[in-house]
Amino acid sequence: MSTYSHRIEGVRAQMINAEIDVLIVPGSDSHLSEYLAEHWKTRDWLSGFTGSAGTLVVTRTQAGLWTDSRYYLQAEDQLKNSGIDLYKEGLPGVPDPIKWITSQFSSGARIALNGTCFSKSRVKEITQQLQQKQIVLETQLTLAEDVWTDRPSIPMDPILLHPQDLAGLSCQEKIEMVRAQLRKTGATHYVVNTLDEIAWATNTRGSDIPFNPVYHAFMVIGPEKTALFTYTQKLTAPIREYFSAQDIDIHPYDNIYFFLTGLNSHDTVFLDPERTNFALTSALSTKVKIKEGAGIITLLKGVKNDVEIRHIRETMRLDGIAMVRFLKWLEESVPKGNVTELTAAQKLKEFRSESDRFVGESFNTISGYGAHGAIVHYSVTPRSDIPLRNEGIYLLDSGGQYVTGTTDLTRTIALGPVPEQAKTDFTLVLKGHIALARVTFPKGTRGVHLDILARQFLWEHQLNYGHGTGHGVGYFLNVHEGPQSIRPQDNGIEIEPGMITSNEPGLYRSGQYGIRTENLVVTKEISENEFGTFLAFETVTLCPIDLSLIKVELLSPSEKEWLNQYHQRVYAQLKPALGKEEVEWLKAKTAAI
Amino acid sequence: MSTYSHRIEGVRAQMINAEIDVLIVPGSDSHLSEYLAEHWKTRDWLSGFTGSAGTLVVTRTQAGLWTDSRYYLQAEDQLKNSGIDLYKEGLPGVPDPIKWITSQFSSGARIALNGTCFSKSRVKEITQQLQQKQIVLETQLTLAEDVWTDRPSIPMDPILLHPQDLAGLSCQEKIEMVRAQLRKTGATHYVVNTLDEIAWATNTRGSDIPFNPVYHAFMVIGPEKTALFTYTQKLTAPIREYFSAQDIDIHPYDNIYFFLTGLNSHDTVFLDPERTNFALTSALSTKVKIKEGAGIITLLKGVKNDVEIRHIRETMRLDGIAMVRFLKWLEESVPKGNVTELTAAQKLKEFRSESDRFVGESFNTISGYGAHGAIVHYSVTPRSDIPLRNEGIYLLDSGGQYVTGTTDLTRTIALGPVPEQAKTDFTLVLKGHIALARVTFPKGTRGVHLDILARQFLWEHQLNYGHGTGHGVGYFLNVHEGPQSIRPQDNGIEIEPGMITSNEPGLYRSGQYGIRTENLVVTKEISENEFGTFLAFETVTLCPIDLSLIKVELLSPSEKEWLNQYHQRVYAQLKPALGKEEVEWLKAKTAAI
Repeated sequence: MSTYSHRIEGVRAQMINAEIDVLIVPGSDSHLSEYLAEHWKTRDWLSGFTGSAGTLVVTRTQAGLWTDSRYYLQAEDQLKNSGIDLYKEGLPGVPDPIKWITSQFSSGARIALNGTCFSKSRVKEITQQLQQKQIVLETQLTLAEDVWTDRPSIPMDPILLHPQDLAGLSCQEKIEMVRAQLRKTGATHYVVNTLDEIAWATNTRGSDIPFNPVYHAFMVIGPEKTALFTYTQKLTAPIREYFSAQDIDIHPYDNIYFFLTGLNSHDTVFLDPERTNFALTSALSTKVKIKEGAGIITLLKGVKNDVEIRHIRETMRLDGIAMVRFLKWLEESVPKGNVTELTAAQKLKEFRSESDRFVGESFNTISGYGAHGAIVHYSVTPRSDIPLRNEGIYLLDSGGQYVTGTTDLTRTIALGPVPEQAKTDFTLVLKGHIALARVTFPKGTRGVHLDILARQFLWEHQLNYGHGTGHGVGYFLNVHEGPQSIRPQDNGIEIEPGMITSNEPGLYRSGQYGIRTENLVVTKEISENEFGTFLAFETVTLCPIDLSLIKVELLSPSEKEWLNQYHQRVYAQLKPALGKEEVEWLKAKTAAI
Repeated sequence: MSTYSHRIEGVRAQMINAEIDVLIVPGSDSHLSEYLAEHWKTRDWLSGFTGSAGTLVVTRTQAGLWTDSRYYLQAEDQLKNSGIDLYKEGLPGVPDPIKWITSQFSSGARIALNGTCFSKSRVKEITQQLQQKQIVLETQLTLAEDVWTDRPSIPMDPILLHPQDLAGLSCQEKIEMVRAQLRKTGATHYVVNTLDEIAWATNTRGSDIPFNPVYHAFMVIGPEKTALFTYTQKLTAPIREYFSAQDIDIHPYDNIYFFLTGLNSHDTVFLDPERTNFALTSALSTKVKIKEGAGIITLLKGVKNDVEIRHIRETMRLDGIAMVRFLKWLEESVPKGNVTELTAAQKLKEFRSESDRFVGESFNTISGYGAHGAIVHYSVTPRSDIPLRNEGIYLLDSGGQYVTGTTDLTRTIALGPVPEQAKTDFTLVLKGHIALARVTFPKGTRGVHLDILARQFLWEHQLNYGHGTGHGVGYFLNVHEGPQSIRPQDNGIEIEPGMITSNEPGLYRSGQYGIRTENLVVTKEISENEFGTFLAFETVTLCPIDLSLIKVELLSPSEKEWLNQYHQRVYAQLKPALGKEEVEWLKAKTAAI
């Protein structure tokens, strides 16, 4: 019996005790975070599957794991000999986990999930689906967690101050901004479950979670008082003083549930049903009125203030310097041999670490050589690692967390001779990148409108890519943040001045190579007239784009002009911080075409 | 006291009798049609306002008319001395009619509307808004109609057959297609309230309503039986026989309400809540289950079959011939004087009438010279009519109803010297038109994605237009039909092969001129590969675009190529039917640039 079969048998014993027929184990924590601290990786512990998206379903006799196309290969590999069946979400005929459960079980069956790890909306959907078959849902049991006796401890790293000269606004100013929005909705209290919302509003950061500089906490912003629920071990004396000065009351982390039971019929709670865990909402008395909507702080922090934008520009210079040093090193080292996907990623981290503002990577570097580049969310491991050779294409998507901003950029690099088709593909992707980078658009435009600009040239050649074109990026916060995005799905959010968004079209030829060119852009207002208020993007990422991959004859004069001006700016802004040889190298890489 | 004040006083007497505080009178019929037969123009009769969009609200002491920006000027003019206040919808601080009512009236007030003239959805919205103030809504009174003693009679024009060789499918085939969709939704009966849905499904046409070749009827498609409710005077012997052969039972028009009361708990009714009048839905027993969704026939008829598309191509040739003759006549006649906006429109209708397939215009021709062209929905009247002179810009948006299809095209024509700015504007609009005409896109793409293609060059110059870029067009049916559209609002409908859609970007400089270039396009599948199934548009409208308005230096080589190929096709396809002088004229107008 494998480790995982053994663990699942332990869970089944719990299920029998509790008279539960099916247990659903998601890959999330009580804050519905994208990345998890080890303590919360219950699904990984139980199944061996480590992907960022996946749901485990355990019955008395079967176990299945559902994941999407990004993780088909990884899941097949990791589930070997576990006795867990793989359900490939998105393939024809594959039911979703709840449909599968309702097809296997009928009236009277009892299903359990841990209500702290599912959003209010998700539990509502599941309940509706199960009710059609009179299946009962239990949301208060922790059957899997109870079996996990050697569970890693909850991170108790200290909470850190994010000073006002970096944040641009004080914590008190931010909380008043939240209250002003809260009043507009008619609500009195905002229950904040999302960790980056808490970090932004309080001007604090943490290191509980890989890549995201946040810490575990809940927050309730009331009409006069603000309550923060966190592990008191995380509070240093200066942070205690700071919170006290900001008029924030500190409570133990788990007290949030009891605190919420104290709200009554005079109170109206605002919450985001997609981002608030079900257990929080069920702690509220039925007398409390509820207003639902998109996270108030998410909307506020999406628009960066002038201080933040000034720091972001400076951070882009630091990140650009690291990238130039890395790209030069790569060009010189690959021919000598012994550079691999893993060592290249490690080297880039070293170059970034030369800045004392650098805190860590903003996500797991995608370092994909050749066919690995075609795996959109490729995560290099010692097992998958391969050497980079003097030919073909290398895809590198990486970013840094700096105390003055978060970066995220992708470059596609020719390590030597590449097929003609790859140059055509690269140029079509670049044309889309440029079209989005230089668009002017009226206020009111949403990401769903702009997405086609990045795809149009690929479509003309009957090509496409399966991911979104752009996501919001935090300020020394999560590299993926809302509210805006640029993708075919309409999220109703307008692109506003001050938003930082990625511009990252790509193309993936399975078994051959992957191409993506990604910069970050900031939205700026450019004019107002009888036809509207017009906005445009300014590209803030500073890093050369590989000229050797461009088919110049496919670029229009205005596209060439954009590229030359961009490269001129990269050169001018990075040059002062570079050594003589680096300047020479960069000059050649940013030469006008 | 004006005619209209007098009429409103009559209505107020009815309101007092019925203890009603507020009456809402919309501009619609029981089928929520875009154009109305005279019998249904209650709001026009009561207020004097004849615009296609507008709601009248009458209280015991006040009266107000709400309309949108298209009709501000017209409403100001028509409401003079009526005692009716104009509320300009869309201006800051102007409440919608229901908000206005709830600000004026409180608990216990009684509001009336005629439930046959409002959709189910709209009544639901109104009810919710009024309930917040405990205001009562009465939906069964016909207070305004009761006062209108000299009301025009209901049109009793005969129903006409639309033969299968024109329709491509028999009525029975179509009804079976509807039933197949109905079964998918789990419903047993489809209540059809929309006149063009009935005309399409039954392969019949009518002439009750200006511009739309439809007739007044309701239809209920059940699992085995189909019931049509119409005025029996409209039925000739052959049409009676035809309906009988198609297994369609005929009932008197008003019997629909009683018929619906006969459905019971075994029945599940499908209806489109946006397109079904409230009175129909309230006739249903509460035991009847209801499934709501977008109109089934609207979705089916949006995709034209091969027979229809073949006829549409031929119809485009007929319409193109009329347009060429008209444009040549215009060029020769304007310098001689005595051509006006009205006589030009009349002349075009004469040219169209030369085809025996021509039935009438598909909408009220927009014939706007100079500044009149900047009024987006300009409708020329004897009072507004002005002569066309040997200079400036003339905007002409018109279309024909042919038994083999419906046309809709707009041309912007230089009648002599025009300002440089107009040429730049025209070229930017044309670049957008071409970008949309030649796009390739994957299956799944919606109009909301494509809209920006037509606007991008205007946006680049900080210009824009306030209307949608494209609408669906019927087949010898309504010139505006669903389900697809190309506009910034997302309607969730994918662009499918066989759909006919307009491509009509524009630009309007208030007080100066209006520019619009409109062709119809049909969607075609072009290829399928690992990246998806790819579709493209084929432009089917055949009419030269004014070369004298183009700044050639603003066009890219591929844009020039598109225009030259389009003009080559116009010339080749229209030439065989034209006289020698017309061919010479067309050759010059379609010369390569």
